[in-house]
Amino acid sequence: MFTIQYTNDAEFLEKSKRPASQVQEIEPIVKSVLEQVKAGGDKAVKELTLKFDKSCPENLLTTQDELDQAENEVPDELKKSILLAKDNIEKFHKSQLQKEVTKVETSKGIVCWQKAVGIEKVGIYIPGGSAPLFSTVLMLAIPAKLAGCKEIVLCSPPRSGGSINSVVLYCAKLLGVTKVFKIGGAQAIAAMAYGTETVPKVSKIFGPGNRFVTVAKQLVNSSETAIDMPAGPSELAVIADEKTNPVYAAADLLSQCEHGLDSQVGLFVDSESKKDEIIKEALRQLDLLPRKDIAAKSFENSFAVVTKNNHESVRLTNLWAPEHLVINTVDAIQLAEEVVNAGSVFIGEYACESAGDYASGTNHTLPTCSAAKAYSGLNMDSFMKKITFQTISQEGIRTIGPAIETMAAAEQLDAHKNAVTVRLK
Amino acid sequence: MFTIQYTNDAEFLEKSKRPASQVQEIEPIVKSVLEQVKAGGDKAVKELTLKFDKSCPENLLTTQDELDQAENEVPDELKKSILLAKDNIEKFHKSQLQKEVTKVETSKGIVCWQKAVGIEKVGIYIPGGSAPLFSTVLMLAIPAKLAGCKEIVLCSPPRSGGSINSVVLYCAKLLGVTKVFKIGGAQAIAAMAYGTETVPKVSKIFGPGNRFVTVAKQLVNSSETAIDMPAGPSELAVIADEKTNPVYAAADLLSQCEHGLDSQVGLFVDSESKKDEIIKEALRQLDLLPRKDIAAKSFENSFAVVTKNNHESVRLTNLWAPEHLVINTVDAIQLAEEVVNAGSVFIGEYACESAGDYASGTNHTLPTCSAAKAYSGLNMDSFMKKITFQTISQEGIRTIGPAIETMAAAEQLDAHKNAVTVRLK
Repeated sequence: MFTIQYTNDAEFLEKSKRPASQVQEIEPIVKSVLEQVKAGGDKAVKELTLKFDKSCPENLLTTQDELDQAENEVPDELKKSILLAKDNIEKFHKSQLQKEVTKVETSKGIVCWQKAVGIEKVGIYIPGGSAPLFSTVLMLAIPAKLAGCKEIVLCSPPRSGGSINSVVLYCAKLLGVTKVFKIGGAQAIAAMAYGTETVPKVSKIFGPGNRFVTVAKQLVNSSETAIDMPAGPSELAVIADEKTNPVYAAADLLSQCEHGLDSQVGLFVDSESKKDEIIKEALRQLDLLPRKDIAAKSFENSFAVVTKNNHESVRLTNLWAPEHLVINTVDAIQLAEEVVNAGSVFIGEYACESAGDYASGTNHTLPTCSAAKAYSGLNMDSFMKKITFQTISQEGIRTIGPAIETMAAAEQLDAHKNAVTVRLK
Repeated sequence: MFTIQYTNDAEFLEKSKRPASQVQEIEPIVKSVLEQVKAGGDKAVKELTLKFDKSCPENLLTTQDELDQAENEVPDELKKSILLAKDNIEKFHKSQLQKEVTKVETSKGIVCWQKAVGIEKVGIYIPGGSAPLFSTVLMLAIPAKLAGCKEIVLCSPPRSGGSINSVVLYCAKLLGVTKVFKIGGAQAIAAMAYGTETVPKVSKIFGPGNRFVTVAKQLVNSSETAIDMPAGPSELAVIADEKTNPVYAAADLLSQCEHGLDSQVGLFVDSESKKDEIIKEALRQLDLLPRKDIAAKSFENSFAVVTKNNHESVRLTNLWAPEHLVINTVDAIQLAEEVVNAGSVFIGEYACESAGDYASGTNHTLPTCSAAKAYSGLNMDSFMKKITFQTISQEGIRTIGPAIETMAAAEQLDAHKNAVTVRLK
């Protein structure tokens, strides 16, 4: 972990800059995959699966039998934990639902309102690999179901045996995912964006993935499919001070470091000695981790800043706009009021970031790479769209009609004006 | 206007398909503009302005004097109309603001909440051309101001004299836009996305534009700048039946046809005779329009569908997902309940679409080209991001800690598990 010395904001920003993502070189490969699936449907998906995953299951769709069997394979303790997490995630996301429609009379006889409606068809991508991210199934399928999405399609790459990890399948069944497909990579994104004979075309695609998945999501997004948000490496900022328990702060920093070599972690602390103490403790804990190699490497690339005080720490994290922000100070609850750029904030010494990753109730799909300046983490809005409605009475059009006529004429849009004029007659 | 005959949904969708947008060929030009501005700042912006707009103002930034002078040039009647519109738009958008933060105790000792915070820096693009779209300044700057955006930057192309239309400037001043720049096209989008010596870098860019602006927005969006939504030609669907006044229905159809040759308009009506009546009336009104040539051409490309009944009409518009939907039937208010895919809905015979374009209070920046299946029209959410917060007490971590440990272990993320373990000790 290196220390950033800065004399002004620009210098801090320059020194804490994330590395630029290198994805341009794979764009042609991904474009070709998208075109093949668009033109060839299921047949192309199978050919690409065979090519990239080395084997291809006969049926892309997971059967009810496979889902039922997966359920039997998940240990009871894990099931119990998942049900607890599900309960908390449901409670928090349900609380975000618009309670009732508010009708506003803007002028006499003119009533406007907004109604949130679930997106009819959504797609969820769950990466494969050694550690199956079943927790992401919870974070995506629970709000989709609560939003009233009618079709929830899930794609995940088949393992060598041709099946999907049983905990992922258990969660999909538990949460009402409509269809689970054994498809991974850019071909999965293409299948959901364009639809095939068996994969339904969806309107919005959610979920993490490797570089190919990320680029595929970007490309389909620039044509007709919505996506959740731009993807980047995981990030965490910890704000600590004199009173912070270094064991907790170090553990939080490392929890993000283990994600990957490109993880971004920053420590903001108001004293040099506490900084040293936390780094020393982190190096001690590092040695005990199974994923030590990855965590050590990204810890090395991480930074610490010694700030004037806790307010300065929050101010700098607002400039950096981290995905996760842990405020582990005595005045954490007050400091949290000053946060304007962050994905999710963890307040106080017991609020570790991994609580939000799994079970406290908040969503773990969050904006990275300073996208928190403009993007929200996933929430109920992500699975719904808001439609506006208006009724206008005869009195209403008489009230605002002349203003519309004047404005439309000034914009030289006479047919717009005329739609009012015929009604005022 | 041609009539769509269909025997099933797929056939209707095929026959009502929007033409694919042809923007790929200009991508290299736009990419080059973006790169020039990123590398060259103000100097590059000025060179590009001279190249594309044939002349370049000495100062890119509009001065206070120019803003004050513009105010004197706007006729009083137009000012009055704009103030009425402003009032309604403010009322409706203000009603969308989250009243208070709802804290949810998901498990004993775990409290989660969500707070909406205005995006600090936003950019607004207003196209130039013969008809200045000052109404769009209202639709973008009003919610930006209400959201608490601190920096609101506006770019609009300079006219031959080097200035921006005075009504646009008047609205910018009235609504608290921070800085107004005389920059148009892709170079404006680049300046706001990357920042220059004089133009502040913003986090999100809003507003309509030509093909170059649209492609530039797409390209900056795939790196680090958020954008409002994908842009496409204007659209309108009208649902009519036996009782509909054909004069109103025809006027509404034409109001959208005048936007451009690529406007998309559809009439959904439950009787053949009413369809003929509306088309006949539209052709009569067409003859009286100043922008007759444009409107006639896009009316020719528009379609009508004769449906079994009004419910079938709504069902088909849900498949087509129009930007604007006018329901001009006696049972309009009930039918509106069945709408799931549309940008904005106008209910009843007096609710003409142009009311929403200018003054009723709803926003006129809406999803086109079936994006209404996944996107909302602009609303307060568009100018804010929602940050999640959580506090966890010692009791809280004891309640959910073991579940987090189990789940993290199952995902092979031991440092995540450890962040809980050290706190349970």
